Amino acid sequence: MNKDFMLYAIDMAKQYLPSPNPRVGCVIVKDDNIIGFGAHIKAGEAHAEVNAVNSCTESTKGADVYVTLEPCSHFGKTPPCADMLCKLGIKNVYIGMKDPDEKVSGKGIEKLKAAGINVVVGICEEECREMNKGYIKHRTTGLPYIVLKSAMTLDGKIATRSGDSKWITSAEALSFSHKQRKESDAIMVGGNTEKEDNPTLTARCETVTYPNRIVLTSRKINKNANIFTVPGKVFICSLLGDFKEEKENNGICEIVHVTAKNLVDLLKYFASCGIMRLLVEGGGTLVGSFLKEKLGDELMLYYGAKIIGDAGAVCGISNISVDKLSDAINVEIVDIIKFRKDFVVKAKPIFK
Amino acid sequence: MNKDFMLYAIDMAKQYLPSPNPRVGCVIVKDDNIIGFGAHIKAGEAHAEVNAVNSCTESTKGADVYVTLEPCSHFGKTPPCADMLCKLGIKNVYIGMKDPDEKVSGKGIEKLKAAGINVVVGICEEECREMNKGYIKHRTTGLPYIVLKSAMTLDGKIATRSGDSKWITSAEALSFSHKQRKESDAIMVGGNTEKEDNPTLTARCETVTYPNRIVLTSRKINKNANIFTVPGKVFICSLLGDFKEEKENNGICEIVHVTAKNLVDLLKYFASCGIMRLLVEGGGTLVGSFLKEKLGDELMLYYGAKIIGDAGAVCGISNISVDKLSDAINVEIVDIIKFRKDFVVKAKPIFK
Repeated sequence: MNKDFMLYAIDMAKQYLPSPNPRVGCVIVKDDNIIGFGAHIKAGEAHAEVNAVNSCTESTKGADVYVTLEPCSHFGKTPPCADMLCKLGIKNVYIGMKDPDEKVSGKGIEKLKAAGINVVVGICEEECREMNKGYIKHRTTGLPYIVLKSAMTLDGKIATRSGDSKWITSAEALSFSHKQRKESDAIMVGGNTEKEDNPTLTARCETVTYPNRIVLTSRKINKNANIFTVPGKVFICSLLGDFKEEKENNGICEIVHVTAKNLVDLLKYFASCGIMRLLVEGGGTLVGSFLKEKLGDELMLYYGAKIIGDAGAVCGISNISVDKLSDAINVEIVDIIKFRKDFVVKAKPIFK
Repeated sequence: MNKDFMLYAIDMAKQYLPSPNPRVGCVIVKDDNIIGFGAHIKAGEAHAEVNAVNSCTESTKGADVYVTLEPCSHFGKTPPCADMLCKLGIKNVYIGMKDPDEKVSGKGIEKLKAAGINVVVGICEEECREMNKGYIKHRTTGLPYIVLKSAMTLDGKIATRSGDSKWITSAEALSFSHKQRKESDAIMVGGNTEKEDNPTLTARCETVTYPNRIVLTSRKINKNANIFTVPGKVFICSLLGDFKEEKENNGICEIVHVTAKNLVDLLKYFASCGIMRLLVEGGGTLVGSFLKEKLGDELMLYYGAKIIGDAGAVCGISNISVDKLSDAINVEIVDIIKFRKDFVVKAKPIFK
């Protein structure tokens, strides 16, 4: 077993976001040489194992398979990968992690073992889990993995008292944040941010991609708003009553009007739409509303190299009322990523 | 020339803070061996060069001297070091930096050269300047070097709406901040902080030391306040009129009541008292007042692993009114020091 092959499979998998399916990469190795490799590129298309087997330059007899996720055991849009692997004379299957989806969980591994294949589970498991954190959260809780983002001055403000917010962070930080948008199935903003910033909510990296766009607001949105001017799906949501879903199309994008009782119901609805990775971009009230409800798996707090120093400026996180410091939300700081001029803190909230 | 000897001299110098004198370290080297070394320990006591010469284990004839600052050329509390070095048969004098004090600046170097000694200036100059940033600012501007400190939650708050502030940062961060107190000639807080926190304002490291304690306030301070319960000097200051200075003694510490017209005048007064390194510890209004007046050489922004998320909580930096983001204070982030649980950002404000 050579971990490098698993890391290679992970790197391939991470290039795609085939939601609502997991990211999977697969490498087939014989005599320490890669003879085939593949990734799962898009939901509905071939699984990573199939792509890897199809790319093989020689017979798989006696080969080893490195696959980041337990091969599937059920008929979905494609036949079970475990069944396929059983027929190829494969010696060892190295698996990154067990599939958390109860339709598979353990059954794929059983099939392989029953066919006399040696199976090892848990190779580079941490990395495999990290790249599929959306999939895992989605399958185990029925909710998306939620990243709460804020871009603040060093004193925690996201706009001046007059609402001026462009730009707090550096171009390098902005570029990094667009990569994060690209890694998301949907981007959510609050009504104020939509109105003040009129964002397009696209992911502008080397190419432009179009994650689902969500506005949570009780107010009406201007028909000419930028979010309606690019392809994809826009959800206009409010928390004002029983569940209701109305669809329309403006010729450019699909617009879905959704009403839900509360945030959790709304998030369950998004999960049912295949949204596994949700990026909540603010403003401060929206981010605070999530934290108040103990929702949020990760925080990405960008700090620009600026100080506003004005108690009347707009807070990066608000909407919570805290009297005692012991009631503040504790977080675990996971990483600090430095840019040339500023930085971003990755953290995990620890809800009591 | 071997930079390592200069770095050794710097390390020795940094162990002391002989304000209002500069930190100086000196190493005497012969045939690549250290034959003597010394530092300037306390104002009024022997200079580093004298201590180094006195410690020599053999003749200085033909030796090299590494000294972090240009040797003095004038009679102060001790005779000129340059004169002494001229008489010792020394071959080379390697100097970290020219003395910024106009009583010396260049004259010490001239004396050495006139005596036929080879002199090289600027060895590890950046490190030499850094450890004497207080001395340099003091001698070149007549003001102390000002460090503005704040210990905030990740969303920029220093206390909850009810004033609860203990503790936002980790014990490790707190310990680091006490090292910074020890590196300061004086610690300043505002009247609110004095009242809310009742701080002692001592530097609690391996041993306890007593930098000057300064409270800037318009209100009366409780006679039993903690700042009056330890040795040293306490300045109670207000910006409410022409300069006035009144001294008293409570049997434990000296208490100086000072009135000044404005912050700059007050800072000049502190400089005249030999305060070269001033640590401004907050609260938010005090730190903001400094920034508003374009005062502050360095920011030390501690971030605890907590989120308050309450717009009604106390801001880490306030007292400035900013409409346009272009009027915010830009800073250069110099360093981010990570602790196990939280971190501190060292930055320099860039005033327009």
